[in-house]
Amino acid sequence: MTRIAILGATGYTAVELIKILLRHPNAEIVAVTSRQEGQPHIAMIHPSLTGRLDLRLEDLSPAEVAARAECVFSCLPHGASASVVPALLDAGRRVVDFSADYRLNDPTVYEQWYGQKHVDAARLGKVPYGLPELFRDQIPPARLVANPGCFPTTAILALAPLLKAGLIDPKSIVIDSKSGVSGAGRTLKLTTHYPECNESFSAYNVGRHRHTPEIDQVLGMAAGCPVEVVFAPHLVPMDRGILTTTYSQPLTAASEEKVLQTIRDFYADEPFVRVVDHLPATKDAMGTNFCDITARVVRGRVLTISCIDNLVKGASGAAVQNFNLMFGYPETTAL
Amino acid sequence: MTRIAILGATGYTAVELIKILLRHPNAEIVAVTSRQEGQPHIAMIHPSLTGRLDLRLEDLSPAEVAARAECVFSCLPHGASASVVPALLDAGRRVVDFSADYRLNDPTVYEQWYGQKHVDAARLGKVPYGLPELFRDQIPPARLVANPGCFPTTAILALAPLLKAGLIDPKSIVIDSKSGVSGAGRTLKLTTHYPECNESFSAYNVGRHRHTPEIDQVLGMAAGCPVEVVFAPHLVPMDRGILTTTYSQPLTAASEEKVLQTIRDFYADEPFVRVVDHLPATKDAMGTNFCDITARVVRGRVLTISCIDNLVKGASGAAVQNFNLMFGYPETTAL
Amino acid sequence: MTRIAILGATGYTAVELIKILLRHPNAEIVAVTSRQEGQPHIAMIHPSLTGRLDLRLEDLSPAEVAARAECVFSCLPHGASASVVPALLDAGRRVVDFSADYRLNDPTVYEQWYGQKHVDAARLGKVPYGLPELFRDQIPPARLVANPGCFPTTAILALAPLLKAGLIDPKSIVIDSKSGVSGAGRTLKLTTHYPECNESFSAYNVGRHRHTPEIDQVLGMAAGCPVEVVFAPHLVPMDRGILTTTYSQPLTAASEEKVLQTIRDFYADEPFVRVVDHLPATKDAMGTNFCDITARVVRGRVLTISCIDNLVKGASGAAVQNFNLMFGYPETTAL
Amino acid sequence: MTRIAILGATGYTAVELIKILLRHPNAEIVAVTSRQEGQPHIAMIHPSLTGRLDLRLEDLSPAEVAARAECVFSCLPHGASASVVPALLDAGRRVVDFSADYRLNDPTVYEQWYGQKHVDAARLGKVPYGLPELFRDQIPPARLVANPGCFPTTAILALAPLLKAGLIDPKSIVIDSKSGVSGAGRTLKLTTHYPECNESFSAYNVGRHRHTPEIDQVLGMAAGCPVEVVFAPHLVPMDRGILTTTYSQPLTAASEEKVLQTIRDFYADEPFVRVVDHLPATKDAMGTNFCDITARVVRGRVLTISCIDNLVKGASGAAVQNFNLMFGYPETTAL
Repeated sequence: MTRIAILGATGYTAVELIKILLRHPNAEIVAVTSRQEGQPHIAMIHPSLTGRLDLRLEDLSPAEVAARAECVFSCLPHGASASVVPALLDAGRRVVDFSADYRLNDPTVYEQWYGQKHVDAARLGKVPYGLPELFRDQIPPARLVANPGCFPTTAILALAPLLKAGLIDPKSIVIDSKSGVSGAGRTLKLTTHYPECNESFSAYNVGRHRHTPEIDQVLGMAAGCPVEVVFAPHLVPMDRGILTTTYSQPLTAASEEKVLQTIRDFYADEPFVRVVDHLPATKDAMGTNFCDITARVVRGRVLTISCIDNLVKGASGAAVQNFNLMFGYPETTAL
Repeated sequence: MTRIAILGATGYTAVELIKILLRHPNAEIVAVTSRQEGQPHIAMIHPSLTGRLDLRLEDLSPAEVAARAECVFSCLPHGASASVVPALLDAGRRVVDFSADYRLNDPTVYEQWYGQKHVDAARLGKVPYGLPELFRDQIPPARLVANPGCFPTTAILALAPLLKAGLIDPKSIVIDSKSGVSGAGRTLKLTTHYPECNESFSAYNVGRHRHTPEIDQVLGMAAGCPVEVVFAPHLVPMDRGILTTTYSQPLTAASEEKVLQTIRDFYADEPFVRVVDHLPATKDAMGTNFCDITARVVRGRVLTISCIDNLVKGASGAAVQNFNLMFGYPETTAL
Repeated sequence: MTRIAILGATGYTAVELIKILLRHPNAEIVAVTSRQEGQPHIAMIHPSLTGRLDLRLEDLSPAEVAARAECVFSCLPHGASASVVPALLDAGRRVVDFSADYRLNDPTVYEQWYGQKHVDAARLGKVPYGLPELFRDQIPPARLVANPGCFPTTAILALAPLLKAGLIDPKSIVIDSKSGVSGAGRTLKLTTHYPECNESFSAYNVGRHRHTPEIDQVLGMAAGCPVEVVFAPHLVPMDRGILTTTYSQPLTAASEEKVLQTIRDFYADEPFVRVVDHLPATKDAMGTNFCDITARVVRGRVLTISCIDNLVKGASGAAVQNFNLMFGYPETTAL
Repeated sequence: MTRIAILGATGYTAVELIKILLRHPNAEIVAVTSRQEGQPHIAMIHPSLTGRLDLRLEDLSPAEVAARAECVFSCLPHGASASVVPALLDAGRRVVDFSADYRLNDPTVYEQWYGQKHVDAARLGKVPYGLPELFRDQIPPARLVANPGCFPTTAILALAPLLKAGLIDPKSIVIDSKSGVSGAGRTLKLTTHYPECNESFSAYNVGRHRHTPEIDQVLGMAAGCPVEVVFAPHLVPMDRGILTTTYSQPLTAASEEKVLQTIRDFYADEPFVRVVDHLPATKDAMGTNFCDITARVVRGRVLTISCIDNLVKGASGAAVQNFNLMFGYPETTAL
């Protein structure tokens, strides 16, 4: 049994994480934190947890968290996370960080995309990127794991096998992603006010989304050369799910079957990647830790289509997958 | 051509009103007001109006409004509306008020339900309730019309004919209403944050909704005796539409056909009430000024089912209907 | 480990059942049946099951089913279920029946509401109604359990405690229910075609819904006298969830607190009923086996508001709860 | 006043067309056809038309249609349309055809994509493509106009100005489109059954959608050379709206401002194209005949984003725009 604390427990990734951990036979949630005043019961914030988790939200210092828990899931926003993670690590605790703070290797790139200096820059480049399908070996020994972004998970899982196999031109990659609204978080915004986004579809942050450098970096590692993707995210009027369609130029004449087989072979032993022949729908993966992937070749262009539940494989499910690897539990436990 | 000002033009009823007035051959919108800083162009607030209305939002005094417009539609919230309407009337302007400020006849009831003293209490009881189907004669001469609430429109139109005919017991009325989310307005709230209310159904303000006394009052006039309804509103995950189901005890044995015929006769000449045999859906009335009504008798209980588009017949369409009557245009113009 | 067969495995209750059973440590699904030609793999019909259950749909006789499985979940429609259940029972198998075939005690009532003679009428009245909260003692020894209807579950759980306590008048009950679209099943119909029902709200089968006699019967047992409810179901544009609002006359002056306390006491030891003070939303219970209930007293009328996930507590979750009781597993296993 | 017949009046484009024509001062709908038995009243099929259009659906021959109407809107499917249009034209009637039958110039391409021989092949190449923004001159004299497909409208309006200006490489075009469900029509299909497609996002007909050759053809005319686009449509869980994101390689270094200005200049005098700086949402255009377009340059790639209401500018609104041009009414009448 591992004692767990969850930092920043008022948002959607936290409540999803709690629900997964509640069915984990080796996890015990011992603290949930928030700066909310009055220490409300967690069920006051998330009524779906009524009768399921009897904890109050507390505003705890890193030392207090470290005193109670062996593993800390930080659901804090970027910047905030890097300001508490070092103290937790120094106290001997292990951390899965949901924020972008430890995903990028280069502090300059971080500063450029996040508009602020990194407060723990020395650690960058030494933290494994928590996508076990690509970096499984690095995760069990890690004290800190950077949980991947939701969009990057779909794009990287689809494209990395093709780049590693040299099938597609790394300079040609277009990524058109579509996400449900929970990806935008629980903070009130006009763009996610129901009558604004319901029955509407739009692009947002085109060319400027902060997941871009993360995709560049990991695909660059797969390609063995720098990659700069064109990334355009869109907002879908639904709660959960991301579907990503990518377009790239093949380096050699590649048949659809060869492309599909390359991806299928790459993930042959993976418990959470399903390479399928049909065009997958986000609903197929809803509530699961699966990433469904297929590919097509259209008029000589290589297309991949991949989808996940953004709150599970795109956040809390991946976090528990990393937790399982870090603590030696079977990787699929509770997932 | 009538020159029109719209007060409080940032919300959903205002943008719906603008769209209706843009196709009105006798209406010219000359001012749209808001306390928003910087006088943004109306299309910055409502992108759907791009290229359709070239006005900036201005923070105008009642005198400035009165200097420009002959007719003022106030989309201000309750309290705010009553604080500017008197000056507009004194300046000789005519007003359609969307707020609840002039709907109730009794200042005490207003204070009890709205939690504040009425600042223009002397006028209460002298303002017609803008439901032409019941009070058409009072509207043409009126300087000020109180535009009805959205829930009351559905409940009153369904029940008034039955109460006037003495078919149902005024003491027995239960009103179960269901509204789309636009009815909750454009102010950001957690309850109308997309991932909270999407794919969810809930009741709210049960027994405490401020439309209750308005329904009591108008149904009481129809019944000729005091009426106290049990009113439970619910929130439906959709943009627009209200459907209201009412349950009451018949005073005499009433067949379904007699109940339906009573309603059908009552609205025989009405352009915007459709008494139908089938069970209507809110989508049938979406984007229109219609109220669709039917009735059933189930195990001796009388049921009515009525629906509207809450932003049209429940707000801006009704307002234009009142405007047409006040200014002598054909009642259905632009509707 | 119990070997399980699922009859009629192409619908929504079946796929939900499969997902629950896949995480049940004591259940092994050994057969899934359908009359679909060509024995398609279950994942062809339900892509979400890809990689999770490796079975083909087979058109099996009751004897073949009995030869493989110890427990049979019948997701067949009414009529079809009663035509195979007797053979399964005769072969010594135990059955949880999702259809309405064994819920009613009186064959005449069945015939009246379902429009056909019951083919196994002699068994009616001897089959426990699978609502453990009311009939837990009858379930462990049962060979056959009638899994409750989704609407009845919400209405009965809310009202039975008040009727048993003599707090409300059994002759006064109005039930206004609202259901997500999955309740209408997977058979294609214009009313559940996306552009027809999306962004729309309507009533259906008012006064004629087949869940009416089931509610009458079980509430009558709670009240100790015949009950005839007024029942009006409505269709909500969402996938899952039922919320039921009931209205009844108190027999004695009952405070809101007394009503709530009566319900709270009644379910004090129940794992799947959450009596709450706030107004619950269907989303709170989504994906869970909980029924959330609250009550209000409005102008002397007693209101209850209760909600479930129609596919879980309203169908497949309740079925597994019954299965657990029948086979001696902890009641909450996999739920 | 022009007498109008609508062929195939049971679908979504037909009911949208009827609603637009009902507010057209110069249009009188005199016949609505369908092969439905029993000549049901149009309001039985489309309850939203109750009290608005008093016609029955009739199964009329082309001669009967020609005897009543001066202008015929054919909402028949492809194949069916080409089998009745010649007779209507021979009888001297003018036709706006919603189907794809007269959009392509080359019968071989038609046969290849639609899987059947064209029954009126000789007429292909002589029928104007009803996108007034590109082919306005051809429409007033035309006896027959081919109303454009919904996806092509978004892609062509966004890309044609850039191809004409030689700004982008015609060989590099990727079109990623997203459509609401009404685009799939009213025929019942599992993919558009509410619980299947609600809360889900998927691609469909990737590389195989029949709108592909239509886009190729019209963009080829704009480019002055053959164009073969990569086209991937997706299904969005909403009723209406299409948003199309395109990606192409610039031929010269093109700044975002230059790209935007090129599009803005091209449509400077167009009543129904709004070139905007912000990222448009489908909801901005909902219920209108507008196409909103913007552009971005991301890492050297040119992106366009354009959106319409698929039932209005993507079908019935465009049809009325064409009708207005054909019959000499102001182009924006009723739109």
